[in-house]
Amino acid sequence: MTDPSSSESTVAQSRASVVRLMVPTDANFRGDVFGGEILAEVDRVAFITATRHARTSVVTASFDRVDFIAPVHVGEVVEFDAMLTWVGRTSMEVWVRVHAEAASGGPPRQVAEAFVTMVGLDGDGRPAHVPPLAVQTDEERARFAEGERRMEARRRSRRAH
Amino acid sequence: MTDPSSSESTVAQSRASVVRLMVPTDANFRGDVFGGEILAEVDRVAFITATRHARTSVVTASFDRVDFIAPVHVGEVVEFDAMLTWVGRTSMEVWVRVHAEAASGGPPRQVAEAFVTMVGLDGDGRPAHVPPLAVQTDEERARFAEGERRMEARRRSRRAH
Amino acid sequence: MTDPSSSESTVAQSRASVVRLMVPTDANFRGDVFGGEILAEVDRVAFITATRHARTSVVTASFDRVDFIAPVHVGEVVEFDAMLTWVGRTSMEVWVRVHAEAASGGPPRQVAEAFVTMVGLDGDGRPAHVPPLAVQTDEERARFAEGERRMEARRRSRRAH
Amino acid sequence: MTDPSSSESTVAQSRASVVRLMVPTDANFRGDVFGGEILAEVDRVAFITATRHARTSVVTASFDRVDFIAPVHVGEVVEFDAMLTWVGRTSMEVWVRVHAEAASGGPPRQVAEAFVTMVGLDGDGRPAHVPPLAVQTDEERARFAEGERRMEARRRSRRAH
Amino acid sequence: MTDPSSSESTVAQSRASVVRLMVPTDANFRGDVFGGEILAEVDRVAFITATRHARTSVVTASFDRVDFIAPVHVGEVVEFDAMLTWVGRTSMEVWVRVHAEAASGGPPRQVAEAFVTMVGLDGDGRPAHVPPLAVQTDEERARFAEGERRMEARRRSRRAH
Amino acid sequence: MTDPSSSESTVAQSRASVVRLMVPTDANFRGDVFGGEILAEVDRVAFITATRHARTSVVTASFDRVDFIAPVHVGEVVEFDAMLTWVGRTSMEVWVRVHAEAASGGPPRQVAEAFVTMVGLDGDGRPAHVPPLAVQTDEERARFAEGERRMEARRRSRRAH
Repeated sequence: MTDPSSSESTVAQSRASVVRLMVPTDANFRGDVFGGEILAEVDRVAFITATRHARTSVVTASFDRVDFIAPVHVGEVVEFDAMLTWVGRTSMEVWVRVHAEAASGGPPRQVAEAFVTMVGLDGDGRPAHVPPLAVQTDEERARFAEGERRMEARRRSRRAH
Repeated sequence: MTDPSSSESTVAQSRASVVRLMVPTDANFRGDVFGGEILAEVDRVAFITATRHARTSVVTASFDRVDFIAPVHVGEVVEFDAMLTWVGRTSMEVWVRVHAEAASGGPPRQVAEAFVTMVGLDGDGRPAHVPPLAVQTDEERARFAEGERRMEARRRSRRAH
Repeated sequence: MTDPSSSESTVAQSRASVVRLMVPTDANFRGDVFGGEILAEVDRVAFITATRHARTSVVTASFDRVDFIAPVHVGEVVEFDAMLTWVGRTSMEVWVRVHAEAASGGPPRQVAEAFVTMVGLDGDGRPAHVPPLAVQTDEERARFAEGERRMEARRRSRRAH
Repeated sequence: MTDPSSSESTVAQSRASVVRLMVPTDANFRGDVFGGEILAEVDRVAFITATRHARTSVVTASFDRVDFIAPVHVGEVVEFDAMLTWVGRTSMEVWVRVHAEAASGGPPRQVAEAFVTMVGLDGDGRPAHVPPLAVQTDEERARFAEGERRMEARRRSRRAH
Repeated sequence: MTDPSSSESTVAQSRASVVRLMVPTDANFRGDVFGGEILAEVDRVAFITATRHARTSVVTASFDRVDFIAPVHVGEVVEFDAMLTWVGRTSMEVWVRVHAEAASGGPPRQVAEAFVTMVGLDGDGRPAHVPPLAVQTDEERARFAEGERRMEARRRSRRAH
Repeated sequence: MTDPSSSESTVAQSRASVVRLMVPTDANFRGDVFGGEILAEVDRVAFITATRHARTSVVTASFDRVDFIAPVHVGEVVEFDAMLTWVGRTSMEVWVRVHAEAASGGPPRQVAEAFVTMVGLDGDGRPAHVPPLAVQTDEERARFAEGERRMEARRRSRRAH
């Protein structure tokens, strides 16, 4: 009999970062970075983290919250840091924090935050089981519990539709 | 004295649509349309609706939920339909529904849905008052109440952070 | 025996719209929208209308006239409205009108107009028969006759080459 | 007194070429190069030729005919060759021929042809006088006369609208 | 009198990383990532490192060597790691190493390496003094000496032109 | 027995040019053309020249030197001229010179120069023999000898790594 915990992996094992210099073609009407560029990178880094954990094909199911906290300027270096908060049987919640700093350095400031739900897929494009998440610290356990609450709130809200 | 209701405008007056043929450069690894392209268009159509209502500069504050309901294929025509659900003093909640159909026609199917919060800005980039929303039908009133509940949930969740 | 008119379809059945917010990356040297972006969207919306009518693969044969009537500005919402004017055995003429309006609303103004000829293709990439066009109003009949005159002028001019 | 002919310039002086390798992001649904990419380059090379002649700001007024003669494949080298055919007081007609050949060489084949009308602009964006065209060969004189006929046909067709 | 060493900064202080998921639009004819995309990111990460060190405007003077060691595949995560090797009065040599790994994880493999020379610029676009580089380890001193040799070889080769 | 010289080809037979109008989306932070756009076109034109000579699949092995001599401005017409300098058994060195001139004409100025090494590939992606280069003039012979010296310097420097 297989011990399911043997295939568990930790939050650290699937954590991923994407780092970009924002260039003039990323700008919106106000000269700041277009929100759509930020969202596209959030989607990509969440894809990397979910793929690392699931080790199978994954697809974005929902963006459960994206907060744009401060504008991002052209010429800034932006880091997108993604880690898992909660994993169910086929779903994974990825927490993405976005920080920007001037290309010349200086303190990074948080500019956005998002929770993205990704789903593992089998070869026929149907939801597939993903390994459980091995939470190890008190902070990870707290985030897992919060993630579970968000997931249940989403389920309730969908039924209510 | 100005009657504030005189500048109210209705849901219909700011409703907006964006329609696109999805082309090969929109594709992700699976050959479907990349979620980031969908999100960028959702951001743009919400920008149009909020600008029509506020008649001032607006900026995206948050994506409060985006559900990807079904994959979108290259070669499909996708319609992004945006309307206001709730308007506060400086914030506006925009509901965007996304439908896709084959270029050759056939029944459209819903592929995504999102709630986007936009904020009016004055010339210095600070939150600016926006006109109130004139809700007219029972359905509009119900959506307004739901939007208000989502806004309060967001406020509570931010305080809890 | 098949009644060929049974597969006729009307101008309304294949009519299509594409709507876009023009963004900074669409701009030319003068800060207006680059003509190439307008032409690319005209090609796409004509493709949708011709595909809806032909219900087969189609390809652009010619742009028979494109008039740029007024400049389009970044930040405007542009609507490309396409409908069939004339249909021959394998060719279809699509009339595309382009209107722009400020994102904040206001009266749309016509900015461009084009006539595009599309050809149906079979599986081997050879011209394929397309259904006849069921013209229903006096206006549609007048446009059909004009389209036929343009098609004959094109044929004469090609022979003269 | 200025001799206006002194500022005349010849067809050869403003002739221009643009040459591109077509890459996978230029492809349409059939794997051929998207017509919109061809049209955008036609617009750019006509812009170069008209700018060289007018030595002032210019803008595209119309595409008077674009014939797509044969499909262009990804991986081919495409040359866009532009020369003036006719010049009026503020308008210039540019003839653009497009040839493609395999990157590995081999005989080029004509894939498209277009006539583009460009207009000179002054600092306020109003039509500006452009230098007359010095036609020098019998062929150039014949093309000038044909260009004049096309221009008159366009004027008549606009009045008839 | 100013102590010039006070404004020195270390190799670690300007080191920078850019990390990207390679997507289908990055692909060349063979389905691998187009070399031009790699070079563009090398240029951007070298720009970040040089800007962090110079704390002024910088511009790329030359790519002194780029080795493409192994192909990069669409769907891989690519890290561009940049650090200074040598700094002169107005020039800085940046060493960029590029590693790729599958999105699902696994050992990274080196795919490219480059040496880029950047120059500090003053407000008029003329070469500007940049702070000296504080080399601290034997390895950094060895790389500095090698960088100096490459710089001298470039000077000799330019004179020989 | 095949005479290998029969498949030789000359420098002129594989020479290639790419010509582009630089547009606003090509600009970097300073409003000049981004170095990455220049490098991408250098890669493409070297690909054309190497493909014409090898008449097989080719891949970029290294950029052996790129000198950015002068900034390129948006609105300029840029010509990339590529020719072979040296050919070994499976490698080819391509010399690319880049000149820019104002769209309105005027003297072209050299803005960049590069040496690119391309390698022929067989169907399995392994290095493949390419035809020898028939050098015909004293200048071509001198460039061939210089190219050979650069190639040997690269080999030595790689062994030293």
